[in-house]
Amino acid sequence: MALVRVQNFAVSLDGFGTGEGQSADAHFGHAGDRLHEWMFTTRWWQPGGSGGVDDAFVRQHDVGIGAEIMGAGKFGHPGWHEDPDWRGAWGPNPPFHTPVFVLTHHRREPIEMAGGTTFHFLDASPAEAVDVAREAAGGKDIRVGGGATTIREFLSAGLVDHLHVVVVPILLGRGVRLWDGLEGVERDFQVESTSSPSGVTHVTFTRTTA
Amino acid sequence: MALVRVQNFAVSLDGFGTGEGQSADAHFGHAGDRLHEWMFTTRWWQPGGSGGVDDAFVRQHDVGIGAEIMGAGKFGHPGWHEDPDWRGAWGPNPPFHTPVFVLTHHRREPIEMAGGTTFHFLDASPAEAVDVAREAAGGKDIRVGGGATTIREFLSAGLVDHLHVVVVPILLGRGVRLWDGLEGVERDFQVESTSSPSGVTHVTFTRTTA
Ligand SMILES: NC(=O)c1ccc[n+]([C@@H]2O[C@H](COP(=O)([O-])OP(=O)(O)OC[C@H]3O[C@@H](n4cnc5c(N)ncnc54)[C@H](OP(=O)(O)O)[C@@H]3O)[C@@H](O)[C@H]2O)c1
Ligand SMILES: NC(=O)c1ccc[n+]([C@@H]2O[C@H](COP(=O)([O-])OP(=O)(O)OC[C@H]3O[C@@H](n4cnc5c(N)ncnc54)[C@H](OP(=O)(O)O)[C@@H]3O)[C@@H](O)[C@H]2O)c1
Repeated sequence: MALVRVQNFAVSLDGFGTGEGQSADAHFGHAGDRLHEWMFTTRWWQPGGSGGVDDAFVRQHDVGIGAEIMGAGKFGHPGWHEDPDWRGAWGPNPPFHTPVFVLTHHRREPIEMAGGTTFHFLDASPAEAVDVAREAAGGKDIRVGGGATTIREFLSAGLVDHLHVVVVPILLGRGVRLWDGLEGVERDFQVESTSSPSGVTHVTFTRTTA
Repeated sequence: MALVRVQNFAVSLDGFGTGEGQSADAHFGHAGDRLHEWMFTTRWWQPGGSGGVDDAFVRQHDVGIGAEIMGAGKFGHPGWHEDPDWRGAWGPNPPFHTPVFVLTHHRREPIEMAGGTTFHFLDASPAEAVDVAREAAGGKDIRVGGGATTIREFLSAGLVDHLHVVVVPILLGRGVRLWDGLEGVERDFQVESTSSPSGVTHVTFTRTTA
């Protein structure tokens, strides 16, 4: 059975999945690159990088994934929908290579990019979005790619089978929180924590209930 | 030079140092024992327990400590100050064995307990409290014992030299948050994370600036 997975979602120690002040020039607001620096030291990112636990997790991003669901806040900075030419911040060949379903109240026609990525725009409940994405994923898993608001929504709805969060030891102080309103969610999961020499801690939630 | 240290302060993955609904029967509110179960499996707690990283940290609680500073919310549940006989929730021989300075707007006379613990009640700024505790600690370190409100206050004031937080992989959803309003505090510290087979992650902040 295909799974709904979150991979490599980074949060600060105080639980923020992005900083304050997101814009076209600052996708993570005042957080800058700090939530993702742990990736830059892996050999996935650069030759001669580390092949340790960070590398192992970062490489799970694509494995077995047939479609992504993301929120409008990941697809574009506030106001993106006023720009008819906006095609995401990833350039002509986005790193998804599958259908991507963008949850938004500002629907538009699908955008076909190079490398197998097509952005579809969907105004739907999380459960409906999973149904649509499952259809498109051809038996493979579905990635819920963020941001924090969207992951929280899918966790609340009980739709996530596997959650991988990377806790980065910084205190952002402000931004969008991942964990709000999720009291007791861990009960349906086996939770493991693995610290890396890079300083981050990988926390995985693996569903134990049907 | 004597240090100001926080040892074994437990928070949920979503950052709560205690649950909601603290009372005389529920010191941690709806969190119950869940923030401290990791201690119960150590050989410090019980014969035959584990001697691993949890045990090593738990045993740092007393080492080299000459005085504790705690908040009124750790000393008693809401309303404790209306009970003239309240002497804390630890029984006749509390596990401090040093002078303990309780920060409160409800001062009372010192209470001498068995085993070397004396509770002193202080209405003072964090910096003043450290001065008073340092005097009493006879050259040893000062523990800031919690709760979350008090630790946050001392961190904000730049008074903590060593912070040891135990992240417990549960989502409490409500209670008192540790990390609020501490943006960028990590800059003055070297931060390390160490996951334990018990499931918790020990995060230590060691001051690098004077
Ligand atoms: N930490 C990480 O690893 C990571 C990963 C990915 C992204 N990010 C960052 O996270 C930030 C975005 O996160 P975010 O929490 O602000 O926003 P988000 O989760 O990406 O998007 C939330 C928005 O998506 C739309 N939406 C969500 N569910 C919907 C539904 N069921 N139906 C219709 N529309 C729905 C709504 O926008 P509208 O109503 O405006 O359409 C909603 O405001 C960005 O800064 C991004 O760079 C971080
Ligand atoms: N997670 C852990 O490892 C851990 C460790 C210890 C305790 N706890 C738990 O944490 C909870 C208590 O934490 P909390 O954050 O609610 O409260 P707290 O930090 O223990 O106490 C805060 C209170 O102390 C007094 N206070 C603090 N600073 C003061 C100052 N500078 N001057 C005068 N008074 C001052 C004020 O009370 P008044 O104005 O009422 O006097 C304030 O409301 C309890 O549930 C306890 O069991 C958890």
